[in-house]
Amino acid sequence: MKSLDRLISPRSVAIIGASTDAGKLTGRPLAFLEKYGYAHEILPVNPRVSSIGRHPCFADVKALPHAPDVAIVLVGSSRVVNIVRDLAAIGTGAAIVLAGGFGESGPEGVQRQQMLKEAAGTMRILGPNTIGLVNVTDGVVLSASAALGVNALLPGSTALVSQSGGILGSLLSRTDALGIGFSKLIATGNEADVDVSDLIEYLIDDPATKVLALYLEGLRKPQQFRDAALRAAKAGKPIVAFKVGRSSAGAQSAVSHTGALAGSDAAYDALFKQLGIIRAERFSDLLDFPLVLGGGRHLAGRRLAVITSTGGAASLVADAAGLAGFDVPAPEPATAQRLNALAIPDAVLDRNPIDVTLAGVTPQYFRGVIEAVLESASYDAVAVILGSSSMTQPEIVGEPLRECFARFDKPIIAFASPHAPDAVRHFNLAGIPTFAAPESCAAALSALWRWQNAPAPAPTIVAEKKPSDAGILAMLRPGPLNEYESKALFAKFGMPIAREFCAQTPVEAQACAGRFDGNVVVKVLSRDVLHKSDVGGVAVNIATADVTAACKRMAGAFTAATGLAPEGFLVQELAKGVELIIGFKADEQLGHCILLGMGGVAAELYKDTSLRLAPITRNDAREMIDELKSAPLLKGYRGRPEADIDALLDALMAFSDMVGTIGDHLLEAEINPLFVGAKGNGVRAADGVVVVKAPEC
Amino acid sequence: MKSLDRLISPRSVAIIGASTDAGKLTGRPLAFLEKYGYAHEILPVNPRVSSIGRHPCFADVKALPHAPDVAIVLVGSSRVVNIVRDLAAIGTGAAIVLAGGFGESGPEGVQRQQMLKEAAGTMRILGPNTIGLVNVTDGVVLSASAALGVNALLPGSTALVSQSGGILGSLLSRTDALGIGFSKLIATGNEADVDVSDLIEYLIDDPATKVLALYLEGLRKPQQFRDAALRAAKAGKPIVAFKVGRSSAGAQSAVSHTGALAGSDAAYDALFKQLGIIRAERFSDLLDFPLVLGGGRHLAGRRLAVITSTGGAASLVADAAGLAGFDVPAPEPATAQRLNALAIPDAVLDRNPIDVTLAGVTPQYFRGVIEAVLESASYDAVAVILGSSSMTQPEIVGEPLRECFARFDKPIIAFASPHAPDAVRHFNLAGIPTFAAPESCAAALSALWRWQNAPAPAPTIVAEKKPSDAGILAMLRPGPLNEYESKALFAKFGMPIAREFCAQTPVEAQACAGRFDGNVVVKVLSRDVLHKSDVGGVAVNIATADVTAACKRMAGAFTAATGLAPEGFLVQELAKGVELIIGFKADEQLGHCILLGMGGVAAELYKDTSLRLAPITRNDAREMIDELKSAPLLKGYRGRPEADIDALLDALMAFSDMVGTIGDHLLEAEINPLFVGAKGNGVRAADGVVVVKAPEC
Repeated sequence: MKSLDRLISPRSVAIIGASTDAGKLTGRPLAFLEKYGYAHEILPVNPRVSSIGRHPCFADVKALPHAPDVAIVLVGSSRVVNIVRDLAAIGTGAAIVLAGGFGESGPEGVQRQQMLKEAAGTMRILGPNTIGLVNVTDGVVLSASAALGVNALLPGSTALVSQSGGILGSLLSRTDALGIGFSKLIATGNEADVDVSDLIEYLIDDPATKVLALYLEGLRKPQQFRDAALRAAKAGKPIVAFKVGRSSAGAQSAVSHTGALAGSDAAYDALFKQLGIIRAERFSDLLDFPLVLGGGRHLAGRRLAVITSTGGAASLVADAAGLAGFDVPAPEPATAQRLNALAIPDAVLDRNPIDVTLAGVTPQYFRGVIEAVLESASYDAVAVILGSSSMTQPEIVGEPLRECFARFDKPIIAFASPHAPDAVRHFNLAGIPTFAAPESCAAALSALWRWQNAPAPAPTIVAEKKPSDAGILAMLRPGPLNEYESKALFAKFGMPIAREFCAQTPVEAQACAGRFDGNVVVKVLSRDVLHKSDVGGVAVNIATADVTAACKRMAGAFTAATGLAPEGFLVQELAKGVELIIGFKADEQLGHCILLGMGGVAAELYKDTSLRLAPITRNDAREMIDELKSAPLLKGYRGRPEADIDALLDALMAFSDMVGTIGDHLLEAEINPLFVGAKGNGVRAADGVVVVKAPEC
Repeated sequence: MKSLDRLISPRSVAIIGASTDAGKLTGRPLAFLEKYGYAHEILPVNPRVSSIGRHPCFADVKALPHAPDVAIVLVGSSRVVNIVRDLAAIGTGAAIVLAGGFGESGPEGVQRQQMLKEAAGTMRILGPNTIGLVNVTDGVVLSASAALGVNALLPGSTALVSQSGGILGSLLSRTDALGIGFSKLIATGNEADVDVSDLIEYLIDDPATKVLALYLEGLRKPQQFRDAALRAAKAGKPIVAFKVGRSSAGAQSAVSHTGALAGSDAAYDALFKQLGIIRAERFSDLLDFPLVLGGGRHLAGRRLAVITSTGGAASLVADAAGLAGFDVPAPEPATAQRLNALAIPDAVLDRNPIDVTLAGVTPQYFRGVIEAVLESASYDAVAVILGSSSMTQPEIVGEPLRECFARFDKPIIAFASPHAPDAVRHFNLAGIPTFAAPESCAAALSALWRWQNAPAPAPTIVAEKKPSDAGILAMLRPGPLNEYESKALFAKFGMPIAREFCAQTPVEAQACAGRFDGNVVVKVLSRDVLHKSDVGGVAVNIATADVTAACKRMAGAFTAATGLAPEGFLVQELAKGVELIIGFKADEQLGHCILLGMGGVAAELYKDTSLRLAPITRNDAREMIDELKSAPLLKGYRGRPEADIDALLDALMAFSDMVGTIGDHLLEAEINPLFVGAKGNGVRAADGVVVVKAPEC
């Protein structure tokens, strides 16, 4: 990581293509270095001028007196590669390449980016197509972002890594007014070399950084990202991620349910969950969540006290908190008594929101109320509503609030009901997370709760295995397998399969049915039709005597609907239990995923599915089950028997093992339905689909 | 409405309890009247001073030279009633009562509020517990809100009616910085007299008001509110409503599913839908939505062009728009050609977002792009991203944007990516809705789409009927009816019922079963157990020969689980189709509701229900069906037969007729399941619960 130290904390900065005009993009980096007091060497390179300000200019890279730690490359895309080669040749630590026209712009650009990488050799590259970085901790500004021309830089404990330079500028420009500081802001652009994962690794070790905020457009190296995120979790540094591309989710369609449901955004969502990353739903969350996460305060539960002098605004916060799963309970008798003993005129304080009324807006009353609430065993966190006094006299509430914030450990946040930008800025600077939207109060506290209560992410991701069993390889005949073959493959990995027999003819099927006690399920066998029940190819609960007739009827319907002859018939035990789906999906960017869904129409109509990247841990499997809206059905819902959750966990792990072993061979794989019986009765895969990749795929 | 004219546009204002200290709450109204240039007579009443500023003071109400149009009453609650009586006696038009301590504060306050109403007689009262009103159109400020001391007042076409004075202040204080204006802002407080419905009626006729924004805590007169909202819809004035209390929804529990699912917030949601009111989900929506709704522009479809000079921010808006149901299609060839003909260096303009890049940030280029897009048949609306230039040089984009906004009719909105408060204010003042959150862009355009595409709300609400049939009255025996009786009641209103027979004994049940072709459903009959299937009281698909045994088994299980003996047995045809629930719920505030839900576990686990206030129109019924997540199941989902939607509509109308006729007698009423057969096969109520109110209820 030494090379990233040179990039992020350079002792010398060359600016290639520096302009004398601070108003131009090429003039900004030098101007910003000076504006923000860069204490070390600045080496502008420009053959057309002899100096810029007090800095002598050098004609080209070779003329530099020594190798700089960082070179900011401001030339156009056509000249970048040669410059970078020269920089690498003299031993420059890292180059920040602002120009676009590389990987983001067609095949020619992709080729140019490849040449750029080769030219850089062991020298690190930030970009191309980046706006640079800002190391607030050390006062190093290596960026041309226009936001730096307008605002002050506030130090803070949040590091922002953005794959978009514009978004870095957008967020940075918003923070000054809000009083929100950063430790580092880094735009990675095209990530020809340094990517978001490298920076997470670097920032984990940065003592100035407590929280990481990521703006993501897509991960180029998912495995490195996993490793880095897991290390961050272990180091106790929360990651908040905003990922664009949510509405393109589901654009890709596939044959089976799994394919139709597990779009790319769902895979990102799964990845974030498995890594303990807090997802920012709204853009503003990326600024809001770190305020609370970086505070280092422990949220012991979800009982929130709302202290206010104005009723409506307190209702907004209480309502939003309630929607987010918080309780807003009245104070317990001892605290109620203590509050009422403050004798604030007209105030009724044994309720929550705790409304001190206008009469209570004095430092003394307010301190008394906050203290009582913070010392109460009834509350885990406090939201203070800033009323109209925050516009003109913020210190009435501000002074006791700051004082109590320093003395107590419980999370405290504030909501500015009127437009009170000075108060918001002031409180944020004082470390008290302060929001102008009531929903943000609830969302930020929720983020803290989720972060603290997320199970530790799996420490290692096991490497993919190879099939050791020649029998398995033999089963992987390219193209769709029929139901019998599909389930045989699942069985190889330990998946319990419904008891069944293959029959060639309707009469043979009836003979097979005689081997079961009671009624059976009869199905047409075909590798060409994935959804047999849609074409009359499944008959449930058939008495033995009726099997021949049922098979004939099905075969007729099947042929009428598809023009195909059945390959045969499957006679199967009548499995019982809750019907689930377990599926496989290969996400273009993130790799193999496993889907658990409610069976029947629920997976599709109610989107009652849960996705994780493979391989999964048993804990992931448990979370997948809990995430189903229909999870209560497995847990003794309304007098039903509790389902065999252990067997379901085993089945998910077996499926994950299969995906880990032969996932690269699979296009589709789905068990649908998997019957989950009552506790102790196990699970049964009653139907399945597998499509094997052609070797050249 | 003449009396509201005197309240809202008074030619003379008395201020009872006016203070000479403009810093005090009692000093503010006079100070604000002067600050905002009130042009008519101001009459302060204060026995302790002879004048306030240039206004002579009067010792008491009786000393006033004539009856004022409005009196602002600033005295404490204990003195209000007498003052109001005096004001009424001299013929004052309206009193604005700021004091709290009335209806909101316990039985004594309720009594005081009653005395206040009596004292007012025909004089109108705004409040008590209000912060007053601001008539921006006419420059009349009748309020003590601290927000008025800080900010300027911008005229606009949105009227705000708030049941909270604090929220009025909060919103008002936020608008100056955003460049958002109002026509009127009115806080109704406790609504002892003038309520939100009165003000809607008034504002419909106010030429300065185009959009109504409501902050609601609860409706005191739902019927008047309905009437007023319907009139507003008819007048083409959109209503945006933010209603607190969403998280207390579901707090009330009831015996049947309907009761458990249709909480009070759901009833408000239903009310808003039936009235064509746009619900504000977030607090900020209350300011954001009217910007777009008040623009008077027609959104012909949902194809959005995003014009930008910065990629990341455009992605944010496009992503949010996609999530909200908008398309962001590439320009059609003719427009693409026209855009590329602008020859903006480096810009690739045949995509969407249409990224002019930094090179395109000139008035000329920007005008060319906006014009091409606005004239394109590919787009229904345009979102313009304001990039970093908006911080320092907003006119580069601003001038062509304003010019095109004036020349074209399509909706145009803007998103400020960096912190650019001056640009936001400037564009909003110019009428171009401009937002600082990408999600707000999408939400506001969605609000416009919903408003324009909402079916016309039902023009009249029919009065509740009385049962004309003595037979019906006889059936309403207080307490729970058993299943047979419940369904007989439903049948009285035209609901098709599954064919069934009552039997006293298991043997008799088997004899009944012989009257059906094929297998039957057998149930224990009991008025004491609502969910029979939870206690083993239902057996489905029983062969005739097995009925006696099944009845005995069920009776045993039923008695074991409940300690009760069955009242008998019900033998029923095996109905087929999609299983739905139709239920009744009496909402505490809003009255009778009708619920439609998916049967089985879906209503509860997936919250797959839809609610409307009774009586419903056939169009309401159709919307209820469409609102179900499982609606595709009724419409030929994956090869299934299309369901008999007409029969389902008939059933909903019959249920609504029942609720309209005997709703006041009902505690609970639910059909569960209602089988909806294939088209032409009708519907069947297969089970039902009715609980009749005791007369004293």
